[in-house]
Amino acid sequence: MATVWVNGQVSEQISVSDRAFTYGDGLFATMAVDAAAQIPFLSYHLQRLQDGAARLGFHWQASAALMSLLAQAASRFPAHCLKLQLSRGTGGRGYTPPVEPQVTEVLSVSTLPAHYSKWRQQGITLQTSVVTLAKQPLLAGIKHLNRLEQVLIKRYPLPAGIDDWLVLDTDGKLVETSMANLFLITKTAQGGWLALTPAINYAGVSGVMRQQVIMALLAMGIDVQLQAVSRDCLSRVSHLFISNSLLGIVDVTAVDHYRYQPWPLSSQLRQNLAIQL
Amino acid sequence: MATVWVNGQVSEQISVSDRAFTYGDGLFATMAVDAAAQIPFLSYHLQRLQDGAARLGFHWQASAALMSLLAQAASRFPAHCLKLQLSRGTGGRGYTPPVEPQVTEVLSVSTLPAHYSKWRQQGITLQTSVVTLAKQPLLAGIKHLNRLEQVLIKRYPLPAGIDDWLVLDTDGKLVETSMANLFLITKTAQGGWLALTPAINYAGVSGVMRQQVIMALLAMGIDVQLQAVSRDCLSRVSHLFISNSLLGIVDVTAVDHYRYQPWPLSSQLRQNLAIQL
Repeated sequence: MATVWVNGQVSEQISVSDRAFTYGDGLFATMAVDAAAQIPFLSYHLQRLQDGAARLGFHWQASAALMSLLAQAASRFPAHCLKLQLSRGTGGRGYTPPVEPQVTEVLSVSTLPAHYSKWRQQGITLQTSVVTLAKQPLLAGIKHLNRLEQVLIKRYPLPAGIDDWLVLDTDGKLVETSMANLFLITKTAQGGWLALTPAINYAGVSGVMRQQVIMALLAMGIDVQLQAVSRDCLSRVSHLFISNSLLGIVDVTAVDHYRYQPWPLSSQLRQNLAIQL
Repeated sequence: MATVWVNGQVSEQISVSDRAFTYGDGLFATMAVDAAAQIPFLSYHLQRLQDGAARLGFHWQASAALMSLLAQAASRFPAHCLKLQLSRGTGGRGYTPPVEPQVTEVLSVSTLPAHYSKWRQQGITLQTSVVTLAKQPLLAGIKHLNRLEQVLIKRYPLPAGIDDWLVLDTDGKLVETSMANLFLITKTAQGGWLALTPAINYAGVSGVMRQQVIMALLAMGIDVQLQAVSRDCLSRVSHLFISNSLLGIVDVTAVDHYRYQPWPLSSQLRQNLAIQL
């Protein structure tokens, strides 16, 4: 059964002159297909791809044919993962991009990692990576294809009992994990909750789920601060969780020598996000 | 006539799961074939690819088959450009690289840009790009495939009369042009010459020709300082030139509002490098 489509056709080949192959000139989105064969937040994923393409300097918009292919893939592969990769196609002269690129669209299906549901139930532990992210405001936030930093992070085998790397930028500010955005929770003097999440102005990916979590927290009456977060904040917050489109919300129970209790409102947040992963 | 080989076979297709396509997980070299069908500094290009692969965490060495293909391509295409691109192949899990990758090798031939010989004769003018390079010591120096910064630089059309962009890092230090390394020349109190070239510790590509130029300058009795170079150095040096494997040595006659005379020793340096481009 076909699991990869290139520009709508079943294929696993692209041109060696595709700019994603030569320069990483493109971007991607990773989306869950839920048990009901729906793609949660699909329109947000497509909008984020469109916005990312615009920041890289090319126009892209999901066509009716792509929407139909996405629907077809979702209905055939419930409880799977879809990856939609866009590149600026072929052409241009060296680094100079073509003025009117023919965007390459690659849609592929894969299984959801089996341990994700265990992570949601039990939480995960993080350790700080020795690899830090460069600060490039022009690329920050975009889920682009220049992923060598992430490859370098994941080259290091995770120590026993550690589930993912916590990643800082070259100034030592918290950014994300190797795969997910980060939320820090603290109790206010009034007994309510306050959420912090690293601003993605200099490094990191601004996830679709991060955006949804921010909106859901605000709807729950919880203030969310998007700001530079120094590493010593880890000692001052009471709870930590991560988010991405495949994981949803996962509590973090430890980072290095810091320990955390699962956030009492994680389940409610999941319910409010109305995702069935 | 074939101009692209993938793993030694005439082909223009690679797998959509090739890690260069998905993450820019690889590197490349651009080499001249001279009029005599030789590839100047070939062993240095191959060594640099090997060193770059090691820094990215995989083993690669040019095989006898590749050496033979390079010789064949050079003999068929004198006065052309060869590009050898390596990727970490397919496999791994997400960003996590495969432990023993099957490296993808793509060799392609293209024509040398016609204006390069005019540049060598007349020099070029530069203007400072508004795009600055992020500081990532783990990737600095490597001619890797994460080239979105260069694509963003080249998205801006060059103003009339400007030949290339001068590129700074996010701290405002000089790095390179969009395509070549940079040398600044100043007269010493003793009447000799001193060369400065930006250290490539935080951003930029450490070109094979840069290395050759440094060795040639030293052999000419000219000291070369590899260091952080601030932009105001542009006002204090008397000459400027750029280097890469396709251009050789090209004098810079202007950067923004600064003007320079061609360096009197450029021709001698070209002769000492013994390249016939």
